[in-house]
Amino acid sequence: MKDVMYFDQAASSWPKPPAVMDAMMQCMQEYAANPGRGSHQMAVKASRTLFEARKNLAKLFGVKNPNDISFALNTTHALNQAIKGFVKPGDHVICTHVEHNSVRRPLEYLKASAGVELTYLTHDEQGSMQLNELKEAFRSNTTLVVVTHSSNLLGTIMPIGEIGELCRSHGAKLLVDAAQSAGVLPIHVADMNIDMLAFPGHKGLLGPQGTGGLYTHPDIDLEPLLHGGTGSQSEAIRQPTVRPDRYEAGTQNTPGIAGLNEGVKFILGETVDKIHAKEWAHTQQLMEGLLGIEGVTILGPKLGQNKTGIVSFNIQDVDSSEVAFILDQSFQIAVRSGYHCTPLAHEVAGSLAKGAVRSSIGYFTTDEEITALIEAVKEIQAQYAK
Amino acid sequence: MKDVMYFDQAASSWPKPPAVMDAMMQCMQEYAANPGRGSHQMAVKASRTLFEARKNLAKLFGVKNPNDISFALNTTHALNQAIKGFVKPGDHVICTHVEHNSVRRPLEYLKASAGVELTYLTHDEQGSMQLNELKEAFRSNTTLVVVTHSSNLLGTIMPIGEIGELCRSHGAKLLVDAAQSAGVLPIHVADMNIDMLAFPGHKGLLGPQGTGGLYTHPDIDLEPLLHGGTGSQSEAIRQPTVRPDRYEAGTQNTPGIAGLNEGVKFILGETVDKIHAKEWAHTQQLMEGLLGIEGVTILGPKLGQNKTGIVSFNIQDVDSSEVAFILDQSFQIAVRSGYHCTPLAHEVAGSLAKGAVRSSIGYFTTDEEITALIEAVKEIQAQYAK
Repeated sequence: MKDVMYFDQAASSWPKPPAVMDAMMQCMQEYAANPGRGSHQMAVKASRTLFEARKNLAKLFGVKNPNDISFALNTTHALNQAIKGFVKPGDHVICTHVEHNSVRRPLEYLKASAGVELTYLTHDEQGSMQLNELKEAFRSNTTLVVVTHSSNLLGTIMPIGEIGELCRSHGAKLLVDAAQSAGVLPIHVADMNIDMLAFPGHKGLLGPQGTGGLYTHPDIDLEPLLHGGTGSQSEAIRQPTVRPDRYEAGTQNTPGIAGLNEGVKFILGETVDKIHAKEWAHTQQLMEGLLGIEGVTILGPKLGQNKTGIVSFNIQDVDSSEVAFILDQSFQIAVRSGYHCTPLAHEVAGSLAKGAVRSSIGYFTTDEEITALIEAVKEIQAQYAK
Repeated sequence: MKDVMYFDQAASSWPKPPAVMDAMMQCMQEYAANPGRGSHQMAVKASRTLFEARKNLAKLFGVKNPNDISFALNTTHALNQAIKGFVKPGDHVICTHVEHNSVRRPLEYLKASAGVELTYLTHDEQGSMQLNELKEAFRSNTTLVVVTHSSNLLGTIMPIGEIGELCRSHGAKLLVDAAQSAGVLPIHVADMNIDMLAFPGHKGLLGPQGTGGLYTHPDIDLEPLLHGGTGSQSEAIRQPTVRPDRYEAGTQNTPGIAGLNEGVKFILGETVDKIHAKEWAHTQQLMEGLLGIEGVTILGPKLGQNKTGIVSFNIQDVDSSEVAFILDQSFQIAVRSGYHCTPLAHEVAGSLAKGAVRSSIGYFTTDEEITALIEAVKEIQAQYAK
């Protein structure tokens, strides 16, 4: 399985820096005890590992107090904590047409069960937003705006800084879904007026699956999604208010977070700017190659525009799952087909009928792999053109 | 850190069978892609790993359909899913005085926020329940009984089979917290009338932290705790009803579950009966030794009674955290002190004022470690008796 050319980085990044695996193994072999629970040396080492990961994440995201970052199973968990912990009956929430189901479904659940009002902002075909439309969408009861930093189908980058300013001036809080941006786009929660930031550990941050987290501004108090033991204030009936305990009930994924910490350290070392520049250059190389093939269409931003490492495409009317299957079986190229948990983004891009083949690029993607993918698509297209 | 004598098994088991680490590494290095999302070979291998783990867990717990088991971050996550997904305003819920905060806090939250009625059953000093008291506690609106299989402070084992029968005859569902029993006590959900079973991956099942799960009887539909993407029915606004997707939004912890699968396979190979017999013999050896020391008192079941591998004790009036500190610093023995997230169990045992030193035994605990712990407690007692 080692010779796979892996273009499914937007789902989970792979491969990982070796230090990620080393840290996970060291944890499993030497100190896989409960962080924040015991006071013995192994438990203390586990606590320290979590704190170090929090500190490095805080550095990466411009967060002042590492304890405002809580760990989660995945971005979906973090988004559910943020949305269900913040939104109250009667609130109006604004989101966009390119949100992932991890934003749309919790919001639609609150709409159906708690009478929450919901507005979806529209996009042009490239997935770009109109800030004027956001400005006009605010109501007196608008408490929250939820925006993905970058569409998981189109790669389009949303103007988070400007959105943050608009939210602040309208008295609403901003929750950013950084599923596709953490580790690959600059994020500074203070400078960008981000009140809550949900992020995965296993994508751009290069950590293992089973990790992710949520930054919550110190002025915001969320009702915890998980009530339970925290190792602190055990005698209290209610969840402690102290952070991060309030949002971290139960035993955390210490080996996973030990790995995540190494992923984040790797990114801090390379720098986000260098990572984005390399990934962007590869998207351009891939787009140029694909656009040279007759009948291939690419969703989202045009050649030359800024975007994250996602290139979603179709070959004429060939079913996207068929293309993905051939790429996998005949070329050892791993891509994803279908709807990518974001049906409304397909409406935006006009691809709702057939879905799309999504190829996504990571920091370790090579020139040779890009060339191989282009050549494979050429061959498939030639086959179907016959 | 390798020479630590680890008596904190009730928090997280350690060490793990080598196959657990091997499986985690193989996953990280060869197929850390998204299960249930892509159809490429790496994603398929990830899906298969999750299914194999589900199948082995189903075998261990007497579950007919592996898809009735969903994975979770930890037992707390599974319990919150079960409790908040099942209980409705106006319901009456019965639990016990020895529940962990992962049961008590979600229930108290529902009591405060949704007017749920709550009854706590009492225990004798050994932590045993009176079935008659349960029988009398049922009301016309009792929908759920939540019981820990074994107290995380006392080691007392609850009569789940009899409780299950009473629940069935009174039309209530039974949720069992198997935090201290999964992998070390026989569990058969059908034979014991268990409707929902929450279990950790990182304790008796010998898997890594960041894993756990919930069995849900096919007749029960829970409102999902996490709404989000599942890789299935992407175009639907609502969470899919198909299991396990309904309760597994977002990317699962594939490397962790790969490790958990090996832990479960190890247990199936050794057998739960053999594991419990060995752990019980060690608890008896430890209890005998400790009871021979003047001024040492042990909480929970008496010598000779059945229990899980937990021996909580105090040395006269010495503060439990001081004892734990000395054991750690001077003897390289890891135990836990304090309240263990179960304050009401301390009321039961009469130890609310000072907490307790909890030593907990695992399958890999040795005779020599037991002897060393007894000797260390002797020395500490002698020091304080001067």
